[in-house]
Amino acid sequence: MTLALLQQEASNDTEDNLQRTVAATKQAAKEGAQVVCTQELFTTEYFCQSEDHNNFKLAEPIPGPTTKVFQEIAREEDIVVIASIFEQRAAGLYHNSAAVIDAGGELLGIYRKMHIPDDPLYYEKFYFTPGDKDPGFCTWHTKYGRIGVLICWDQWYPEAARITALAGAEILLYPTAIGWHPAEKATEGNTQHAAWQAIQRSHAIGNGCFVAAANRIGHEKPSDDDGLEFWGQSFVAAPSGEVIANASTDKEEVLLAELNMKEVNVARTHWPFLRDRRIDAYEEITRRFLD
Amino acid sequence: MTLALLQQEASNDTEDNLQRTVAATKQAAKEGAQVVCTQELFTTEYFCQSEDHNNFKLAEPIPGPTTKVFQEIAREEDIVVIASIFEQRAAGLYHNSAAVIDAGGELLGIYRKMHIPDDPLYYEKFYFTPGDKDPGFCTWHTKYGRIGVLICWDQWYPEAARITALAGAEILLYPTAIGWHPAEKATEGNTQHAAWQAIQRSHAIGNGCFVAAANRIGHEKPSDDDGLEFWGQSFVAAPSGEVIANASTDKEEVLLAELNMKEVNVARTHWPFLRDRRIDAYEEITRRFLD
Repeated sequence: MTLALLQQEASNDTEDNLQRTVAATKQAAKEGAQVVCTQELFTTEYFCQSEDHNNFKLAEPIPGPTTKVFQEIAREEDIVVIASIFEQRAAGLYHNSAAVIDAGGELLGIYRKMHIPDDPLYYEKFYFTPGDKDPGFCTWHTKYGRIGVLICWDQWYPEAARITALAGAEILLYPTAIGWHPAEKATEGNTQHAAWQAIQRSHAIGNGCFVAAANRIGHEKPSDDDGLEFWGQSFVAAPSGEVIANASTDKEEVLLAELNMKEVNVARTHWPFLRDRRIDAYEEITRRFLD
Repeated sequence: MTLALLQQEASNDTEDNLQRTVAATKQAAKEGAQVVCTQELFTTEYFCQSEDHNNFKLAEPIPGPTTKVFQEIAREEDIVVIASIFEQRAAGLYHNSAAVIDAGGELLGIYRKMHIPDDPLYYEKFYFTPGDKDPGFCTWHTKYGRIGVLICWDQWYPEAARITALAGAEILLYPTAIGWHPAEKATEGNTQHAAWQAIQRSHAIGNGCFVAAANRIGHEKPSDDDGLEFWGQSFVAAPSGEVIANASTDKEEVLLAELNMKEVNVARTHWPFLRDRRIDAYEEITRRFLD
């Protein structure tokens, strides 16, 4: 499988963001990509830096205008597209979603972000209701492979990676928007990025699958504070945990990676973690705390 | 909390192995350690390189001779000791266990390894029955902190780390025996070690706790094949995922680390992963595969 991660900068011009992502998708296809994954919420700036009811206007249904555009590209180019979308599901009901479009253009389904953060400048709980429990974590059989999609904050949860892998995913794709608070970057920046990469590499290792994260770049400062410096560094990890493709911190890139999907079976056979799971002893995972 | 990890070489002289570990424990206490953790099965070579009924003679009960020795040291030095022991629990029933001894000498309990490997030269399923389900993963309130103990192969299972952290552990201690097959070291060695460290760092990150692994060194070649080169590199990771202490590949060491246990609450508050767990959607963790 040839994978492309689209790492881009976003402005407050949503049509321009869309058209640049369309162009990057076509470029990826021209360069041989079979599966293309966008960064999180690529049509907009990361508007969750404030709680503003006006931002709900940025949402759209699935299927809707953005899926229509990418379904057409998927048909023309015979590629799979994972498109991150701010979804309006019903009146007053919004999700942070990803549309999964198969080569040929069929809309296979929607993943709705299950873990929603709420931290300074990441006020997602205001905008997004969490994904439903059933189906929560899921996998799609695309023309080029069995794909699981998770989104950003999900990255920090081994449960999400594990269940998606158990559902058959041989690659976990994470559209992402993560960056540094400028005031913290000098002291905490390297540690934060290292943690982000380490825990995703660990999902590849523990589940014997590929993991890929597409992150945005750019310093977005929609309000009066310092804003966020998105750290880019989109990457792909092999089932061994090795980083086999890694983008810059500050450049728009179509990050291509050749994935030998046979490595999934090899890794899981030589590091047979799935064999020895103590499924009789894991039920406390469903508890908040054991006090 | 001042932690010491004992990284040692073992020979086929079990009394010498024990005495050198006793000496290292006392040295650790002299250097200020409050909690001391041994490597896995420190009184013996890593005998699981072959399936030999004679090796069952190496087992002992808990409480037994080894816990007696370390209970006395714990009383004399007022330190907590985590002592890895090949445990005979009953006739024909053996575990890969760790005794948890509180400062003052009380035997607080036993952790019995839950995940048992069986791979070339790691024939543990022949020797060790897996730990019971209830209590499987557990935590002890020691004089110097709330400690969770897991053993070696458990390292690769985020479920084990998560449940132990939910049970209150603020540090996860992993007595370990892991090394390279000499024939694979040149091609796979760095990747294998990097994966081992990454997934344990990820347990620290995802659970906002400290993680420490005590591993042995030395090339043990008890049979005719190439044996195993234990890779040492005992280490301690902070809740941020940063490695704050790291031992060599080939030297005996008393690896000391100062742990500021207040970092647990700081990390969990600033990276509030426990807050957002989707405990309503994790029950499939208890399934083998979702086919």
